[in-house]
Amino acid sequence: MSDHAHVFDDAVALRPTGEGSWQGHTSPAYANMIGPYGGITAAQALNAVLLHPELLGEPVALTVNFAAALADGPFAARPRPARTNRSTQHWIVEILQDDRVVVTATAVTAVRRDTWGAREQAMPAVPRPQDLPQAQGRAVEWLRRYDMRFVTGSIPREWNGQDAGESLSRMWVRDAPARPLDFASLTALADVSFPRLWLRRAKLTPLGTVSMTVYFHAGADQLRATGDGYLLLQARGQGFRGGYFDHAGQLWNEAGELLATTHQVVYYKE
Amino acid sequence: MSDHAHVFDDAVALRPTGEGSWQGHTSPAYANMIGPYGGITAAQALNAVLLHPELLGEPVALTVNFAAALADGPFAARPRPARTNRSTQHWIVEILQDDRVVVTATAVTAVRRDTWGAREQAMPAVPRPQDLPQAQGRAVEWLRRYDMRFVTGSIPREWNGQDAGESLSRMWVRDAPARPLDFASLTALADVSFPRLWLRRAKLTPLGTVSMTVYFHAGADQLRATGDGYLLLQARGQGFRGGYFDHAGQLWNEAGELLATTHQVVYYKE
Repeated sequence: MSDHAHVFDDAVALRPTGEGSWQGHTSPAYANMIGPYGGITAAQALNAVLLHPELLGEPVALTVNFAAALADGPFAARPRPARTNRSTQHWIVEILQDDRVVVTATAVTAVRRDTWGAREQAMPAVPRPQDLPQAQGRAVEWLRRYDMRFVTGSIPREWNGQDAGESLSRMWVRDAPARPLDFASLTALADVSFPRLWLRRAKLTPLGTVSMTVYFHAGADQLRATGDGYLLLQARGQGFRGGYFDHAGQLWNEAGELLATTHQVVYYKE
Repeated sequence: MSDHAHVFDDAVALRPTGEGSWQGHTSPAYANMIGPYGGITAAQALNAVLLHPELLGEPVALTVNFAAALADGPFAARPRPARTNRSTQHWIVEILQDDRVVVTATAVTAVRRDTWGAREQAMPAVPRPQDLPQAQGRAVEWLRRYDMRFVTGSIPREWNGQDAGESLSRMWVRDAPARPLDFASLTALADVSFPRLWLRRAKLTPLGTVSMTVYFHAGADQLRATGDGYLLLQARGQGFRGGYFDHAGQLWNEAGELLATTHQVVYYKE
């Protein structure tokens, strides 16, 4: 770790240990209530692919499955190119602690080409981030790593158990301190939404993300152009039943470009 | 294969070949323009998990990555329980032909419990399937395996290259002949939407799904109750750029219950 590196770069750093394996370490800076923030784990899984010497292209799709709570400490990341085509590549990643799998992931990387394009999911009309207050609730460490400015759907003021009837949220967010966007940080940013169940029910139910997918619409060029600006993250719950709920979300930059879409399914206990 | 089995059951049938491997065969009944219909491949990948003797619980999440076009013929399916917890299990699946990976997949299965629930994504108000005509366009074989009744967003009447500005579709669909719903057939049904790019642009662009995710909100009880009724499948494109587009979708039964949500990212060439 360098004195000058951004805290995010330290958190996702991986060291090759030979035979297709990398070693990383959970980051106290991104600690959640139990174990690390899931978004940083997802970013570490993606980084294992991005650092691989055989990497072809840029991320198009990433699915991360959280198989067990990570313990604070080191982990082994094992990315494997399962199939390499002319312009696309398919990855399987496993993260292990004490030789047990704690994360499984798949990724698709590809060489992008210029084509016709469209943003059918248009960015909603919202105030600028500069005109909104920075959220102050910092109950857990990882929340301090993000500058969040809520448009709608912030954490409930009162945990009164009243069903809000919906769970839409829109927030501006960027790394704190600000950092130029890349694929790993975009992945972590895709997970910063508060759990839909908490918004919906105003009740602090124990829960944890089970699986998360990110589709990357932006190429490296668009990420560079986005720089360290804010992203608008929108998320909305779809179904809640039998101990699992999901949400669908989108991330735009300040220019209104759709950088990524994301979905996740979350376990809850009551 | 039995004389009495439904064509879908024949298509997803797998035969154990020892050492955690199963053998399947592409089905001429579900042939697409090149190779098999992706939905049937996804159902086969899930079936490899469902048939595994160590299976715990029911599917909650499935991600299938299409790494290469399947050739007509046999394939090996290799499901592996990467992590088994008390009530959840994490799977990695690979499908191979000639010892090369053609599909990678991950699945999460879990024991469901009764909890508070809600359908935030409500079924839109649409006519009943009985009051809509059955779609007749049957350019490829797999389309004959489904009874489709479009509410909106059918395949363009004219391929005139006019940008429609949006790509929303809503359709009632079920197996043809009708068949009681299960997790494998629900997976296949989640992929029947026409490609959003074709709807959007009215242009027959070459394309192929790269990755598809299904979140199962229904348990086996709800699938049984749905029986062989129609499902309403809604899908809408989100972003189109750099040779890839995605869509987000939902599946409800006729009672308005949200059975699954689904997302996919598709390669296109122009």
